Amino acid sequence: MEMKLSARNMLKGRVKNIVKGPVSSEVTVELMGGDTIVSVITKTSAEELKLAEGKEVLVVIKASSVMIATD
Amino acid sequence: MEMKLSARNMLKGRVKNIVKGPVSSEVTVELMGGDTIVSVITKTSAEELKLAEGKEVLVVIKASSVMIATD
Amino acid sequence: MEMKLSARNMLKGRVKNIVKGPVSSEVTVELMGGDTIVSVITKTSAEELKLAEGKEVLVVIKASSVMIATD
Amino acid sequence: MEMKLSARNMLKGRVKNIVKGPVSSEVTVELMGGDTIVSVITKTSAEELKLAEGKEVLVVIKASSVMIATD
Amino acid sequence: MEMKLSARNMLKGRVKNIVKGPVSSEVTVELMGGDTIVSVITKTSAEELKLAEGKEVLVVIKASSVMIATD
Amino acid sequence: MEMKLSARNMLKGRVKNIVKGPVSSEVTVELMGGDTIVSVITKTSAEELKLAEGKEVLVVIKASSVMIATD
Repeated sequence: MEMKLSARNMLKGRVKNIVKGPVSSEVTVELMGGDTIVSVITKTSAEELKLAEGKEVLVVIKASSVMIATD
Repeated sequence: MEMKLSARNMLKGRVKNIVKGPVSSEVTVELMGGDTIVSVITKTSAEELKLAEGKEVLVVIKASSVMIATD
Repeated sequence: MEMKLSARNMLKGRVKNIVKGPVSSEVTVELMGGDTIVSVITKTSAEELKLAEGKEVLVVIKASSVMIATD
Repeated sequence: MEMKLSARNMLKGRVKNIVKGPVSSEVTVELMGGDTIVSVITKTSAEELKLAEGKEVLVVIKASSVMIATD
Repeated sequence: MEMKLSARNMLKGRVKNIVKGPVSSEVTVELMGGDTIVSVITKTSAEELKLAEGKEVLVVIKASSVMIATD
Repeated sequence: MEMKLSARNMLKGRVKNIVKGPVSSEVTVELMGGDTIVSVITKTSAEELKLAEGKEVLVVIKASSVMIATD
């Protein structure tokens, strides 16, 4: 059985780098299309998900958190 | 002179679709790498940025708004 | 296979009410413990998840979106 | 005189655990209904609110930060 | 008795304009210092707070939602 | 050429204080009108923007992240 999430943005990628602090972790993910996404999650989440360089992950973003810019 | 933003995620794309409500607008952007991102911004922002299908834009996301999932 | 999410907060509940606008939907969920949570997601998400009164759902909240108050 | 807040979600609970980093603090709150909520706030906020294990608090969440998932 | 909130940013202002949709409301607030802040909250919140032009309010923003830009 | 951003709130100010952790940085900005805003961004962003006390910056906030309170 599969969980479905209301978050509109779920992008496949691979963990490229992890920096851990005492509370927060910064996780850099390289998307399949070549773009790079940086995420800050709790250190506990990074550990529970067993994140490590090279691991396949989904990047998840709620639509109301996404801004648009024009040059 | 160029504005620099603390938001870690700025991805190039092209507007694919816009749905406007009285307050909010939903903007779908196709990224260069092929992924699709959905954004909800105010209708006023969509108008001030003159967003329209096909327009080149940047998708901007603060790192603390990005989650990670594993299958 | 089960999706695991970095969001630290996932609470079981049941949809109590849905209000749909042209872009956003407001979904009220009654948690198992009796508390009530209000969520605003896109109308498209509400439809894709086939949300309806009485449906069992999970409420998902990123830890960095949670504030604390004291009386 | 009482402050009223636009945030739709205010749930009563009790602090269960606090982890402090140099900038951020992770605060775990047990809700009256038995659910547990994790919050990341600044270390300064945790200190100004004098948060400590056992203290009664309110968990406050803006509706637009709440997602919904279905199994 | 006074509620204290972990949100680090609480700025005094006065409601300048309200636009209501079926789910969301856009509230424009003029701060004491002259700056203008736009907020999107639920229509229900705007009604429960009895927001109206000229009403004194506090603008509340969690620190993790604030970005910094340089020119 | 100038970047335009959908974020409705862009306020001029000057950096007053920076606290750096291993992942996150807390940046306090004094607005032109006298109000003070606290931001949490990644340490990497603070370094890339070369933030330092006294530097002129813009505080950027998405409208959907702004709450309203009344006394």
